[in-house]
Amino acid sequence: MCELLGMECNVPTDIVFSFSGLALRGGVRGPHADGWGLALYEGRAVRTFLEPAAAANSKLAAYVRSHPIKTLLAIAHVRKRTRGPISLANTHPFVRELWGRHFTFAHNGTVRGVKRHKLTRFHPIGTTDSEYAFCVILNRLERAFPGGYPQDRAKLHRAVARIGKELGESGTFNFLLGDGEQMFARCATKLSYIVRKAPFEKATLADEDLTVDFAEVTTPRDRVAIVATAPLTRDERWTIGRPGEMWVFRRGQLAATLRS
Amino acid sequence: MCELLGMECNVPTDIVFSFSGLALRGGVRGPHADGWGLALYEGRAVRTFLEPAAAANSKLAAYVRSHPIKTLLAIAHVRKRTRGPISLANTHPFVRELWGRHFTFAHNGTVRGVKRHKLTRFHPIGTTDSEYAFCVILNRLERAFPGGYPQDRAKLHRAVARIGKELGESGTFNFLLGDGEQMFARCATKLSYIVRKAPFEKATLADEDLTVDFAEVTTPRDRVAIVATAPLTRDERWTIGRPGEMWVFRRGQLAATLRS
Repeated sequence: MCELLGMECNVPTDIVFSFSGLALRGGVRGPHADGWGLALYEGRAVRTFLEPAAAANSKLAAYVRSHPIKTLLAIAHVRKRTRGPISLANTHPFVRELWGRHFTFAHNGTVRGVKRHKLTRFHPIGTTDSEYAFCVILNRLERAFPGGYPQDRAKLHRAVARIGKELGESGTFNFLLGDGEQMFARCATKLSYIVRKAPFEKATLADEDLTVDFAEVTTPRDRVAIVATAPLTRDERWTIGRPGEMWVFRRGQLAATLRS
Repeated sequence: MCELLGMECNVPTDIVFSFSGLALRGGVRGPHADGWGLALYEGRAVRTFLEPAAAANSKLAAYVRSHPIKTLLAIAHVRKRTRGPISLANTHPFVRELWGRHFTFAHNGTVRGVKRHKLTRFHPIGTTDSEYAFCVILNRLERAFPGGYPQDRAKLHRAVARIGKELGESGTFNFLLGDGEQMFARCATKLSYIVRKAPFEKATLADEDLTVDFAEVTTPRDRVAIVATAPLTRDERWTIGRPGEMWVFRRGQLAATLRS
């Protein structure tokens, strides 16, 4: 099992505080020492930092923490290998271009039956069930919306939820999916979120004595949605997902909740 | 105009020496201060470091130089903006998945007419003619080889050369294209290469007093092909490309030369 972290905001925000909490679980506090990745959007394009090694001791992860890049949408992952060897190709998040934008995907769980699904346009590079499932999602979306990125966002939400439900029937399918404009977060077994907004308060990481006073680093109009496998802070009220629930975050707020 | 750098080897090699030479041209010695990118393969997967800012002063570029990652295939680029604003989406190299492998592309020049070509599967995320041309190449390759990555490499070489010639007719189309197994290097106006192999000697960067003794960092079986817009060293014999020539490098040697 792995740990997921997503951030979706209405103003460019750095993910350092939350990523620090996640990175700790990548090898020091947690068993997720088999790789980590961080994807940061700029518009419809994403850049990724990937390493098939523990985040906790990573010099690249330390670099990322000490040189924050602000973004409206970020997806991060620390990996505890279940299926597929440790390699760059098997390191989440995975990225593909569809409709002239990057889609980014990270998964927690195992979807055993997924390789029964036939692939068309998108093919995995590595050997994980996770990347395969991502390819299935994109193949389905492309077929469902031949005209390109749907203007009607609710249709896209329903399509992602439907595919998530179907693939989730043959395994554990907690995932984060970003498209540069919104973030989909599906809970199969374990996922939680919080939306930070005014009045901002202090928060302390659950796994370390690191506190941030968000009032000092934000403006009253900021809204920041954070999704994580487990709550990252010990003094905030996180919403815990129910099995089969999918959230959509847009402009720093919960835009939709779909249940299957 | 931009500067290209490619490396293709038979044993994992770090690109730090050559990348240092390139990075100097990205803002200090050269006018290419509008972005830089470095793509490093691990098997069929690539990781990229991208920054829409000058390489010469970049902390990320400094990080990459001081934490070398060995690879069999690397493509780097420093950008002097000609078309398309400075942004992550417009920063080379560009990456797409085709046939379950990453293709990576960097371009030097301007291909004005390229947007006349209809796109099918692959679409640009940014606004450069370069990324558009890359999408045209991949759309054509996918159509030409419906069975996937061709077993007959010569057919793939000819297909890439043919598309290169066609797109090159409406502009300047120097490019590097990697597929995880080989590197295609097309010269429209300016490109050069060298294959370093035993007996290895010393080399000094053209733009800085930085010397490396390759005999100290290699074994007698190593072969390293380096391609660059302009020779990066002043004491080695580079082969200068002719207009319309395309080289293919595989396992550290020149595997094919195609002329159009």
